Amino acid sequence: MIYLDNAATTYPKPNSVQNAVNTALKKYGANPGRAGHSMSLAAAEEIYRCRTAAAGFFNAPGPECVAFTLNCTHALNYVIKGLLKPGDHAVVSCLEHNAVMRPLQKLMESGVTVTRVRVFPGDNDATVDAFRSALRENTKLIVCTHASNVWGIRLPVERIAALGHVYGIPIAVDCAQSAGILPIDMADSGFDYLCVAGHKGLYGPMGTGMLITPDGSELSTMIEGGTGTNSISLDQPQTMPDRMESGTQNMMGIAGLRAGIEFVKSRGVKTIYQHEMSLVQNLYRRLAEMKNVKLYTPEPDAPYYAPVLSFNVGDIPSETIAQKLNDSGIAVRAGLHCSPAAHDFMGTLTQGAVRVCPSAFSNLGEMNNFVAALRKII
Amino acid sequence: MIYLDNAATTYPKPNSVQNAVNTALKKYGANPGRAGHSMSLAAAEEIYRCRTAAAGFFNAPGPECVAFTLNCTHALNYVIKGLLKPGDHAVVSCLEHNAVMRPLQKLMESGVTVTRVRVFPGDNDATVDAFRSALRENTKLIVCTHASNVWGIRLPVERIAALGHVYGIPIAVDCAQSAGILPIDMADSGFDYLCVAGHKGLYGPMGTGMLITPDGSELSTMIEGGTGTNSISLDQPQTMPDRMESGTQNMMGIAGLRAGIEFVKSRGVKTIYQHEMSLVQNLYRRLAEMKNVKLYTPEPDAPYYAPVLSFNVGDIPSETIAQKLNDSGIAVRAGLHCSPAAHDFMGTLTQGAVRVCPSAFSNLGEMNNFVAALRKII
Repeated sequence: MIYLDNAATTYPKPNSVQNAVNTALKKYGANPGRAGHSMSLAAAEEIYRCRTAAAGFFNAPGPECVAFTLNCTHALNYVIKGLLKPGDHAVVSCLEHNAVMRPLQKLMESGVTVTRVRVFPGDNDATVDAFRSALRENTKLIVCTHASNVWGIRLPVERIAALGHVYGIPIAVDCAQSAGILPIDMADSGFDYLCVAGHKGLYGPMGTGMLITPDGSELSTMIEGGTGTNSISLDQPQTMPDRMESGTQNMMGIAGLRAGIEFVKSRGVKTIYQHEMSLVQNLYRRLAEMKNVKLYTPEPDAPYYAPVLSFNVGDIPSETIAQKLNDSGIAVRAGLHCSPAAHDFMGTLTQGAVRVCPSAFSNLGEMNNFVAALRKII
Repeated sequence: MIYLDNAATTYPKPNSVQNAVNTALKKYGANPGRAGHSMSLAAAEEIYRCRTAAAGFFNAPGPECVAFTLNCTHALNYVIKGLLKPGDHAVVSCLEHNAVMRPLQKLMESGVTVTRVRVFPGDNDATVDAFRSALRENTKLIVCTHASNVWGIRLPVERIAALGHVYGIPIAVDCAQSAGILPIDMADSGFDYLCVAGHKGLYGPMGTGMLITPDGSELSTMIEGGTGTNSISLDQPQTMPDRMESGTQNMMGIAGLRAGIEFVKSRGVKTIYQHEMSLVQNLYRRLAEMKNVKLYTPEPDAPYYAPVLSFNVGDIPSETIAQKLNDSGIAVRAGLHCSPAAHDFMGTLTQGAVRVCPSAFSNLGEMNNFVAALRKII
């Protein structure tokens, strides 16, 4: 099988990730932070190593800024619901995933208002201007995807963060598609909240995500429970990461995520980006030559795009093409990719699109096979 | 190391669990329910097998009643916050974990009221009467632990459920300590919500839990996001399990949980209970003979106790004893076990207690070594 569905989750994972998972099951089998015995402490130390690795990777102030979550969706919910109150206004891009839009939709029932800002691919000035125009007196949060999970369109989140800070508005960046692929410097860019998937560009296992913030005390909690700390109090701890981590954590997942982050570090974000972009650009040029193939963006290039490419064949439903590709042993994702907003932007709400996303392990031979299979189908 | 901290998480896991995790990383590496290609479908089928296994195990109406969560704490939050509104009243036992008490404490800020009901160990009539007396016109939920994670005291949840139903009040049972050890029959007992830890008596990996309910549509959602279903709608799906499962799930954890449930099924809940109880009873008798050892309950016996035993040595801090046991190669948990309410009940809020909990893999030889080590310490 040729796996090109890496925007959903990367596959395969590095061997070091699988090894870390197995080591965790054997050596870190006790509940971390829940007892003083040696194996519980060893487990807690492994968790701490992952926090440290993540904080270093994103240049967050310290390991305590990293809270582990089930996935990026949970991290986004924690920020969105933790900050917005009835009467507040939020600003988002027009390319947001349902992980952003559905929580906001829920909040709209209780009097939160939301403005979707139009994005101008390739024209960051226009995009930032559009964000500026959307800000209001009662805007309390900007939520913005770093890169569209459908079109690869990259948003100027650093400039949007700077804009927000002029008006004292925090920004949460949805890094589901960008962590491990695009450079992210929390301190340098002044991001208030990073919401991260652990199982995509960071090569950790599914079931891992992170909320990274210099100060979680502003966030009202959504989930409370045992944290193994200050147990006598019925109030959730104020400080990160305990505030955002209730109940037993995904020990083996976090151990795997640590190994994944180390893999990305050792290979280098820039190298991975260039590798994947060259594959996507190669594919784009060959698709552009094919009769009947619809492409929706200009040829993706740095710094305006992340290495994700979606297309269609005439008016054929995207699912049909994906099914035929699957019959040829190629795994891609069709449909709406949980991002109707992004499809609405391109006018593909009905047809969806066929999405191709390479990983650090993908190679040109696989792309050649993909193109050959698609030619045959067409 | 002799591991007797199984109430925090079971260790070791069965080999089949570790194998299932590795198989998941290799064979089910795609995102389940997020695409139509073969590996995504295979992953979704493995998830479905776990749903089916869990539904069968707890006699829930069907696999769709099983939603996977990060842990039991999240499941409890989903029910507590999903049902209670300002002005509502909730009834809980006096033995609840912070996974119940902290969410309720949070809700009390917005006008939810809570009554803690006194439990009468060994006298279920008195306990049920106490619950009856606590019910009010505006009682909208009973939350009750199946068995105390500190004292092993088992609550008559079947009778409390029946009581609640007379008044139309749903019950959520915290099965963190009981799933896999005590019999739980959802349909027969009329439980409305089961909140389950996957990594304790079910022998799945840490990072797994379940919310099981015949009908989740009553629950207001706390987390919304991509579900891979009905993506065009910005509203969270109404139906279980999608309603309660947003974002990418813990694929390898769920695969491991399936194997864990099958392990428990094959060994038999009754057999496991009898095995663990015989170890705990043996330990109880020998501790009772030791000078200076404080025990807090009568000798635990069916049907009034689960196999968990907590004790102290004179007025020595529980952490000191646990530390010395750790120096002798024995892992137990001291302190408050995230359950100040349960410690308050027994008057051990200051000292905490040393907790011993065997698993299906524990044996009498380990208990002998434990007793010998404790004798030496004393």
